[in-house]
Amino acid sequence: MFITFEGIEGTGKTTQIKLLTNFLKESGHEVDVTLEPGGSRIGRELRKILLNMDSTDITGECELFLYLADRAQHVGQVIKPAVEAGKVIISDRFADSTIVYQGYGRGLDPKLLRELNDVAVSGHWPDLTVLLDIDPEIGLKRAMTRNLQDNKMQEEGRFEAESIDFHSRVREGYLTWAALNQERFVVINADQTPDEIFTEIKEKVVERLQSR
Amino acid sequence: MFITFEGIEGTGKTTQIKLLTNFLKESGHEVDVTLEPGGSRIGRELRKILLNMDSTDITGECELFLYLADRAQHVGQVIKPAVEAGKVIISDRFADSTIVYQGYGRGLDPKLLRELNDVAVSGHWPDLTVLLDIDPEIGLKRAMTRNLQDNKMQEEGRFEAESIDFHSRVREGYLTWAALNQERFVVINADQTPDEIFTEIKEKVVERLQSR
Repeated sequence: MFITFEGIEGTGKTTQIKLLTNFLKESGHEVDVTLEPGGSRIGRELRKILLNMDSTDITGECELFLYLADRAQHVGQVIKPAVEAGKVIISDRFADSTIVYQGYGRGLDPKLLRELNDVAVSGHWPDLTVLLDIDPEIGLKRAMTRNLQDNKMQEEGRFEAESIDFHSRVREGYLTWAALNQERFVVINADQTPDEIFTEIKEKVVERLQSR
Repeated sequence: MFITFEGIEGTGKTTQIKLLTNFLKESGHEVDVTLEPGGSRIGRELRKILLNMDSTDITGECELFLYLADRAQHVGQVIKPAVEAGKVIISDRFADSTIVYQGYGRGLDPKLLRELNDVAVSGHWPDLTVLLDIDPEIGLKRAMTRNLQDNKMQEEGRFEAESIDFHSRVREGYLTWAALNQERFVVINADQTPDEIFTEIKEKVVERLQSR
Protein backbone atom coordinates (compact mmCIF):
# COMPACT_ATOMS: atom_id res chain seq x y z
CA MET A 1 0.00 0.00 0.00
CA PHE A 2 1.29 3.43 -1.01
CA ILE A 3 0.13 6.40 1.12
CA THR A 4 1.02 10.06 0.52
CA PHE A 5 0.61 13.15 2.69
CA GLU A 6 -0.12 16.50 1.08
CA GLY A 7 -0.84 20.07 2.19
CA ILE A 8 0.79 23.49 2.46
CA GLU A 9 3.70 24.14 4.85
CA GLY A 10 2.91 24.04 8.57
CA THR A 11 0.00 21.57 8.49
CA GLY A 12 1.88 19.03 10.62
CA LYS A 13 2.61 16.40 7.95
CA THR A 14 5.85 15.26 9.63
CA THR A 15 4.19 14.72 13.02
CA GLN A 16 1.26 12.82 11.53
CA ILE A 17 3.54 10.60 9.42
CA LYS A 18 5.46 9.64 12.59
CA LEU A 19 2.24 8.82 14.46
CA LEU A 20 0.89 6.74 11.57
CA THR A 21 4.19 4.90 11.09
CA ASN A 22 4.32 3.89 14.77
CA PHE A 23 0.69 2.80 14.71
CA LEU A 24 1.12 0.67 11.57
CA LYS A 25 4.33 -0.93 12.85
CA GLU A 26 2.58 -1.82 16.12
CA SER A 27 -0.20 -3.39 14.03
CA GLY A 28 2.42 -5.66 12.42
CA HIS A 29 3.04 -3.90 9.10
CA GLU A 30 6.43 -3.29 7.54
CA VAL A 31 6.58 0.47 6.93
CA ASP A 32 9.04 2.64 4.96
CA VAL A 33 8.88 6.44 5.18
CA THR A 34 10.17 8.68 2.41
CA LEU A 35 9.76 12.20 1.07
CA GLU A 36 9.83 14.49 -1.98
CA PRO A 37 11.88 16.17 -3.14
CA GLY A 38 14.92 14.15 -2.02
CA GLY A 39 13.78 10.54 -1.59
CA SER A 40 16.76 9.11 -3.52
CA ARG A 41 20.51 9.82 -3.69
CA ILE A 42 20.17 11.87 -6.89
CA GLY A 43 16.95 13.38 -5.51
CA ARG A 44 18.83 14.78 -2.51
CA GLU A 45 21.10 16.71 -4.89
CA LEU A 46 18.02 18.04 -6.70
CA ARG A 47 16.36 18.98 -3.39
CA LYS A 48 19.26 21.33 -2.61
CA ILE A 49 18.72 23.14 -5.93
CA LEU A 50 14.90 23.21 -5.66
CA LEU A 51 14.50 24.48 -2.11
CA ASN A 52 17.50 26.82 -1.93
CA MET A 53 16.75 30.54 -1.61
CA ASP A 54 19.47 31.26 -4.22
CA SER A 55 17.37 29.50 -6.88
CA THR A 56 15.17 32.54 -7.50
CA ASP A 57 16.39 32.60 -11.12
CA ILE A 58 14.85 29.20 -11.86
CA THR A 59 12.25 29.17 -14.68
CA GLY A 60 8.82 27.60 -14.08
CA GLU A 61 9.49 24.85 -16.62
CA CYS A 62 12.93 24.01 -15.20
CA GLU A 63 11.46 23.75 -11.70
CA LEU A 64 8.71 21.48 -13.03
CA PHE A 65 11.13 19.11 -14.79
CA LEU A 66 13.39 18.93 -11.71
CA TYR A 67 10.44 17.78 -9.59
CA LEU A 68 9.58 15.20 -12.26
CA ALA A 69 13.21 13.98 -12.37
CA ASP A 70 13.26 13.63 -8.59
CA ARG A 71 9.96 11.74 -8.74
CA ALA A 72 10.97 9.34 -11.51
CA GLN A 73 14.12 8.37 -9.60
CA HIS A 74 12.14 8.11 -6.34
CA VAL A 75 9.56 5.80 -7.90
CA GLY A 76 12.14 3.59 -9.61
CA GLN A 77 14.52 3.23 -6.68
CA VAL A 78 12.34 3.53 -3.58
CA ILE A 79 8.56 3.33 -4.05
CA LYS A 80 8.26 0.53 -6.64
CA PRO A 81 10.65 -1.82 -4.74
CA ALA A 82 8.79 -1.19 -1.44
CA VAL A 83 5.36 -1.81 -2.98
CA GLU A 84 6.63 -4.97 -4.67
CA ALA A 85 8.05 -6.19 -1.34
CA GLY A 86 4.55 -5.88 0.20
CA LYS A 87 5.45 -2.99 2.52
CA VAL A 88 3.41 0.06 3.43
CA ILE A 89 5.30 3.05 2.05
CA ILE A 90 4.44 6.58 3.19
CA SER A 91 5.70 9.62 1.27
CA ASP A 92 5.76 13.19 2.58
CA ARG A 93 4.56 14.89 -0.66
CA PHE A 94 4.28 13.27 -4.12
CA ALA A 95 2.88 13.98 -7.61
CA ASP A 96 -0.11 15.97 -6.29
CA SER A 97 2.31 18.60 -4.94
CA THR A 98 3.55 19.29 -8.47
CA ILE A 99 0.05 19.45 -9.92
CA VAL A 100 -1.11 21.83 -7.21
CA TYR A 101 1.96 24.08 -6.72
CA GLN A 102 2.95 24.35 -10.40
CA GLY A 103 -0.60 24.17 -11.72
CA TYR A 104 -2.93 26.03 -9.36
CA GLY A 105 -0.06 27.99 -7.75
CA ARG A 106 2.06 29.00 -10.75
CA GLY A 107 -0.55 28.81 -13.51
CA LEU A 108 0.66 25.85 -15.60
CA ASP A 109 -2.04 23.60 -17.13
CA PRO A 110 -3.14 20.90 -14.60
CA LYS A 111 -4.04 18.54 -17.46
CA LEU A 112 -0.52 18.76 -18.94
CA LEU A 113 0.91 18.32 -15.43
CA ARG A 114 -1.16 15.18 -14.95
CA GLU A 115 0.23 13.75 -18.22
CA LEU A 116 3.83 14.60 -17.37
CA ASN A 117 3.36 12.96 -13.97
CA ASP A 118 2.03 9.84 -15.66
CA VAL A 119 5.47 9.50 -17.27
CA ALA A 120 7.26 10.14 -13.95
CA VAL A 121 5.21 7.75 -11.76
CA SER A 122 4.99 4.85 -14.33
CA GLY A 123 1.71 3.57 -12.91
CA HIS A 124 2.56 4.13 -9.24
CA TRP A 125 -0.13 6.60 -8.21
CA PRO A 126 -0.88 6.44 -4.42
CA ASP A 127 -3.59 4.17 -3.03
CA LEU A 128 -4.48 6.80 -0.46
CA THR A 129 -3.64 10.50 -0.18
CA VAL A 130 -4.15 12.37 3.10
CA LEU A 131 -4.65 16.10 2.52
CA LEU A 132 -4.07 18.17 5.66
CA ASP A 133 -6.02 21.38 5.16
CA ILE A 134 -5.37 24.64 7.01
CA ASP A 135 -5.68 28.41 6.59
CA PRO A 136 -2.35 29.53 5.02
CA GLU A 137 -1.94 32.34 7.60
CA ILE A 138 -1.87 29.74 10.39
CA GLY A 139 0.20 27.21 8.46
CA LEU A 140 2.90 29.65 7.38
CA LYS A 141 3.26 31.08 10.89
CA ARG A 142 3.95 27.53 12.13
CA ALA A 143 6.39 26.80 9.30
CA MET A 144 8.31 30.04 9.87
CA THR A 145 8.70 29.33 13.60
CA ARG A 146 9.93 25.82 12.83
CA ASN A 147 12.40 26.99 10.19
CA LEU A 148 13.82 29.67 12.48
CA GLN A 149 14.28 27.05 15.21
CA ASP A 150 15.94 24.61 12.82
CA ASN A 151 17.96 27.45 11.25
CA LYS A 152 17.10 26.24 7.75
CA MET A 153 15.48 29.36 6.32
CA GLN A 154 18.37 30.11 3.94
CA GLU A 155 18.71 26.49 2.95
CA GLU A 156 15.12 25.45 2.30
CA GLY A 157 12.89 28.51 2.66
CA ARG A 158 12.07 29.26 -0.98
CA PHE A 159 8.43 28.24 -0.85
CA GLU A 160 7.73 29.75 2.57
CA ALA A 161 9.00 33.05 1.15
CA GLU A 162 6.23 33.12 -1.49
CA SER A 163 3.34 35.53 -0.93
CA ILE A 164 0.24 34.66 1.10
CA ASP A 165 -1.71 34.96 -2.19
CA PHE A 166 0.37 32.13 -3.66
CA HIS A 167 -0.27 29.89 -0.65
CA SER A 168 -3.99 30.68 -0.75
CA ARG A 169 -4.10 29.61 -4.41
CA VAL A 170 -2.24 26.42 -3.46
CA ARG A 171 -4.68 25.67 -0.65
CA GLU A 172 -7.69 26.18 -2.92
CA GLY A 173 -5.94 24.10 -5.60
CA TYR A 174 -5.47 21.21 -3.19
CA LEU A 175 -9.18 21.25 -2.31
CA THR A 176 -10.20 21.36 -5.98
CA TRP A 177 -7.80 18.57 -6.93
CA ALA A 178 -8.95 16.42 -4.00
CA ALA A 179 -12.57 16.88 -5.08
CA LEU A 180 -11.63 15.72 -8.59
CA ASN A 181 -9.89 12.62 -7.16
CA GLN A 182 -12.20 11.61 -4.34
CA GLU A 183 -11.58 7.88 -4.73
CA ARG A 184 -8.04 8.42 -3.47
CA PHE A 185 -8.08 11.58 -1.32
CA VAL A 186 -9.20 12.12 2.28
CA VAL A 187 -9.30 15.73 3.48
CA ILE A 188 -8.58 16.37 7.17
CA ASN A 189 -8.99 19.67 9.04
CA ALA A 190 -5.45 20.36 10.33
CA ASP A 191 -6.53 23.18 12.65
CA GLN A 192 -6.96 20.72 15.54
CA THR A 193 -4.58 19.15 18.07
CA PRO A 194 -2.17 16.48 16.70
CA ASP A 195 -4.11 13.78 18.58
CA GLU A 196 -7.45 14.86 17.13
CA ILE A 197 -5.98 14.93 13.62
CA PHE A 198 -4.40 11.51 14.05
CA THR A 199 -7.65 9.93 15.27
CA GLU A 200 -9.28 10.94 11.96
CA ILE A 201 -6.34 9.73 9.85
CA LYS A 202 -6.14 6.38 11.68
CA GLU A 203 -9.81 5.70 11.05
CA LYS A 204 -9.49 6.35 7.28
CA VAL A 205 -6.30 4.32 6.88
CA VAL A 206 -7.67 1.31 8.77
CA GLU A 207 -10.81 1.49 6.60
CA ARG A 208 -8.66 1.39 3.42
CA LEU A 209 -6.39 -1.39 4.69
CA GLN A 210 -9.42 -3.54 5.57
CA SER A 211 -11.08 -2.95 2.19
CA ARG A 212 -7.99 -4.31 0.38
CA MET B 1 19.43 33.00 -35.65
CA PHE B 2 19.72 29.88 -33.50
CA ILE B 3 22.13 27.17 -34.74
CA THR B 4 22.73 23.80 -33.05
CA PHE B 5 25.41 21.15 -33.58
CA GLU B 6 24.56 17.48 -33.10
CA GLY B 7 26.30 14.11 -33.48
CA ILE B 8 27.85 11.32 -31.41
CA GLU B 9 31.04 11.87 -29.39
CA GLY B 10 34.24 12.46 -31.36
CA THR B 11 32.73 14.06 -34.46
CA GLY B 12 34.58 17.33 -33.90
CA LYS B 13 31.63 19.53 -32.83
CA THR B 14 33.81 21.74 -30.59
CA THR B 15 36.37 22.43 -33.34
CA GLN B 16 33.69 23.25 -35.92
CA ILE B 17 31.81 25.55 -33.53
CA LYS B 18 35.03 27.52 -32.96
CA LEU B 19 35.67 27.83 -36.71
CA LEU B 20 32.08 28.92 -37.38
CA THR B 21 32.11 31.43 -34.52
CA ASN B 22 35.30 33.09 -35.80
CA PHE B 23 33.95 33.19 -39.33
CA LEU B 24 30.63 34.74 -38.30
CA LYS B 25 32.31 37.32 -36.06
CA GLU B 26 34.63 38.33 -38.90
CA SER B 27 31.52 38.72 -41.08
CA GLY B 28 30.20 41.24 -38.54
CA HIS B 29 27.72 39.14 -36.55
CA GLU B 30 27.39 39.14 -32.80
CA VAL B 31 27.80 35.48 -31.77
CA ASP B 32 27.19 33.69 -28.44
CA VAL B 33 28.33 30.07 -27.95
CA THR B 34 26.66 27.77 -25.43
CA LEU B 35 26.18 24.05 -24.73
CA GLU B 36 23.93 21.35 -23.25
CA PRO B 37 23.84 20.07 -20.66
CA GLY B 38 25.23 22.95 -18.59
CA GLY B 39 24.40 26.19 -20.43
CA SER B 40 23.09 27.95 -17.30
CA ARG B 41 24.12 28.18 -13.63
CA ILE B 42 21.58 25.57 -12.53
CA GLY B 43 22.35 23.57 -15.68
CA ARG B 44 26.01 23.27 -14.66
CA GLU B 45 24.92 21.56 -11.44
CA LEU B 46 22.72 19.19 -13.45
CA ARG B 47 25.56 18.50 -15.91
CA LYS B 48 27.66 17.12 -13.02
CA ILE B 49 24.90 14.65 -12.13
CA LEU B 50 24.13 13.67 -15.74
CA LEU B 51 27.63 13.01 -17.03
CA ASN B 52 29.22 11.56 -13.87
CA MET B 53 30.24 7.91 -14.02
CA ASP B 54 28.75 7.43 -10.52
CA SER B 55 25.25 8.07 -11.90
CA THR B 56 24.83 4.53 -13.21
CA ASP B 57 21.82 4.12 -10.88
CA ILE B 58 19.86 6.85 -12.71
CA THR B 59 16.52 5.69 -14.20
CA GLY B 60 15.73 6.42 -17.87
CA GLU B 61 12.87 8.74 -16.91
CA CYS B 62 14.94 10.66 -14.34
CA GLU B 63 17.71 11.18 -16.89
CA LEU B 64 15.15 12.41 -19.41
CA PHE B 65 13.58 14.96 -17.04
CA LEU B 66 17.01 16.26 -15.98
CA TYR B 67 17.89 16.98 -19.61
CA LEU B 68 14.53 18.73 -20.01
CA ALA B 69 15.12 20.78 -16.84
CA ASP B 70 18.55 21.82 -18.07
CA ARG B 71 17.03 22.75 -21.45
CA ALA B 72 14.14 24.79 -20.03
CA GLN B 73 16.52 26.86 -17.92
CA HIS B 74 18.94 27.21 -20.86
CA VAL B 75 16.19 28.46 -23.18
CA GLY B 76 14.77 30.90 -20.63
CA GLN B 77 18.05 32.37 -19.44
CA VAL B 78 20.41 32.10 -22.41
CA ILE B 79 18.86 31.26 -25.80
CA LYS B 80 15.70 33.37 -25.76
CA PRO B 81 17.53 36.55 -24.59
CA ALA B 82 20.22 36.09 -27.27
CA VAL B 83 17.69 35.54 -30.07
CA GLU B 84 15.69 38.56 -28.92
CA ALA B 85 18.86 40.67 -28.92
CA GLY B 86 19.38 39.78 -32.61
CA LYS B 87 22.52 37.70 -32.01
CA VAL B 88 23.57 34.44 -33.64
CA ILE B 89 23.57 31.82 -30.87
CA ILE B 90 25.28 28.45 -31.40
CA SER B 91 24.60 25.53 -29.04
CA ASP B 92 26.73 22.38 -28.75
CA ARG B 93 23.82 19.88 -28.51
CA PHE B 94 20.13 20.73 -27.91
CA ALA B 95 16.69 19.05 -27.96
CA ASP B 96 17.60 16.66 -30.80
CA SER B 97 20.17 15.01 -28.51
CA THR B 98 17.41 14.02 -26.08
CA ILE B 99 15.15 12.72 -28.82
CA VAL B 100 17.95 10.66 -30.35
CA TYR B 101 19.80 9.37 -27.24
CA GLN B 102 16.72 8.70 -25.08
CA GLY B 103 14.47 7.74 -27.98
CA TYR B 104 16.49 5.82 -30.57
CA GLY B 105 19.27 4.97 -28.06
CA ARG B 106 17.32 4.00 -24.94
CA GLY B 107 14.00 3.03 -26.50
CA LEU B 108 11.65 5.77 -25.24
CA ASP B 109 8.93 6.92 -27.66
CA PRO B 110 10.30 9.68 -30.00
CA LYS B 111 6.79 11.19 -30.34
CA LEU B 112 6.44 11.60 -26.55
CA LEU B 113 9.99 13.01 -26.45
CA ARG B 114 9.06 15.55 -29.11
CA GLU B 115 6.04 16.68 -27.02
CA LEU B 116 8.05 16.92 -23.80
CA ASN B 117 10.66 18.97 -25.64
CA ASP B 118 7.95 21.30 -26.91
CA VAL B 119 7.32 22.20 -23.23
CA ALA B 120 11.05 22.65 -22.55
CA VAL B 121 11.91 24.80 -25.59
CA SER B 122 8.75 27.02 -25.49
CA GLY B 123 8.83 27.68 -29.22
CA HIS B 124 12.60 28.04 -29.53
CA TRP B 125 13.45 25.20 -31.92
CA PRO B 126 16.72 25.84 -33.86
CA ASP B 127 16.68 27.58 -37.24
CA LEU B 128 19.50 25.32 -38.45
CA THR B 129 20.92 22.07 -37.05
CA VAL B 130 24.29 20.77 -38.26
CA LEU B 131 24.55 16.99 -37.85
CA LEU B 132 28.15 15.74 -37.97
CA ASP B 133 27.95 12.11 -39.02
CA ILE B 134 30.66 9.52 -38.42
CA ASP B 135 31.14 5.77 -37.88
CA PRO B 136 30.90 5.26 -34.07
CA GLU B 137 34.11 3.17 -34.03
CA ILE B 138 36.07 6.17 -35.34
CA GLY B 139 34.18 8.75 -33.24
CA LEU B 140 34.57 6.90 -29.96
CA LYS B 141 38.29 6.30 -30.51
CA ARG B 142 38.73 10.06 -30.94
CA ALA B 143 36.58 10.85 -27.86
CA MET B 144 38.49 8.37 -25.66
CA THR B 145 41.86 9.83 -26.68
CA ARG B 146 40.62 13.33 -25.93
CA ASN B 147 39.13 12.38 -22.55
CA LEU B 148 42.30 10.62 -21.47
CA GLN B 149 44.30 13.70 -22.44
CA ASP B 150 41.94 16.01 -20.56
CA ASN B 151 41.77 13.54 -17.65
CA LYS B 152 37.97 13.83 -17.54
CA MET B 153 36.95 10.18 -18.01
CA GLN B 154 35.75 9.76 -14.42
CA GLU B 155 34.02 13.10 -14.45
CA GLU B 156 32.18 13.04 -17.77
CA GLY B 157 32.63 9.65 -19.37
CA ARG B 158 29.22 8.06 -18.77
CA PHE B 159 28.09 8.13 -22.40
CA GLU B 160 31.45 7.14 -23.88
CA ALA B 161 31.30 4.06 -21.64
CA GLU B 162 28.11 2.83 -23.33
CA SER B 163 28.42 -0.09 -25.76
CA ILE B 164 29.24 0.30 -29.44
CA ASP B 165 25.72 -1.07 -30.12
CA PHE B 166 24.22 1.87 -28.24
CA HIS B 167 26.29 4.38 -30.22
CA SER B 168 25.35 2.68 -33.50
CA ARG B 169 21.65 3.01 -32.61
CA VAL B 170 22.26 6.68 -31.78
CA ARG B 171 24.02 7.30 -35.09
CA GLU B 172 21.19 5.63 -37.04
CA GLY B 173 18.67 7.56 -34.93
CA TYR B 174 20.31 10.87 -35.81
CA LEU B 175 20.13 10.06 -39.52
CA THR B 176 16.45 9.03 -39.26
CA TRP B 177 15.53 12.10 -37.23
CA ALA B 178 17.40 14.39 -39.66
CA ALA B 179 15.50 12.84 -42.58
CA LEU B 180 12.21 13.54 -40.76
CA ASN B 181 13.24 17.18 -40.19
CA GLN B 182 14.97 18.08 -43.46
CA GLU B 183 13.82 21.71 -43.43
CA ARG B 184 16.11 22.33 -40.45
CA PHE B 185 18.90 19.72 -40.62
CA VAL B 186 22.05 19.58 -42.71
CA VAL B 187 24.05 16.34 -42.54
CA ILE B 188 27.84 16.57 -42.97
CA ASN B 189 30.29 13.69 -43.35
CA ALA B 190 32.64 14.14 -40.36
CA ASP B 191 35.20 11.62 -41.61
CA GLN B 192 37.13 14.38 -43.41
CA THR B 193 39.73 16.95 -42.31
CA PRO B 194 38.45 19.82 -40.12
CA ASP B 195 38.99 22.25 -43.03
CA GLU B 196 37.00 20.11 -45.46
CA ILE B 197 34.16 19.79 -42.92
CA PHE B 198 34.15 23.51 -42.25
CA THR B 199 33.98 24.40 -45.94
CA GLU B 200 30.71 22.44 -46.19
CA ILE B 201 29.26 23.94 -42.99
CA LYS B 202 30.16 27.51 -44.01
CA GLU B 203 28.40 27.12 -47.35
CA LYS B 204 25.15 25.89 -45.69
CA VAL B 205 25.16 28.57 -42.98
CA VAL B 206 25.75 31.40 -45.43
CA GLU B 207 22.92 30.05 -47.59
CA ARG B 208 20.55 30.13 -44.58
CA LEU B 209 21.66 33.56 -43.41
CA GLN B 210 21.08 34.98 -46.89
CA SER B 211 17.63 33.40 -47.23
CA ARG B 212 16.42 35.13 -44.06
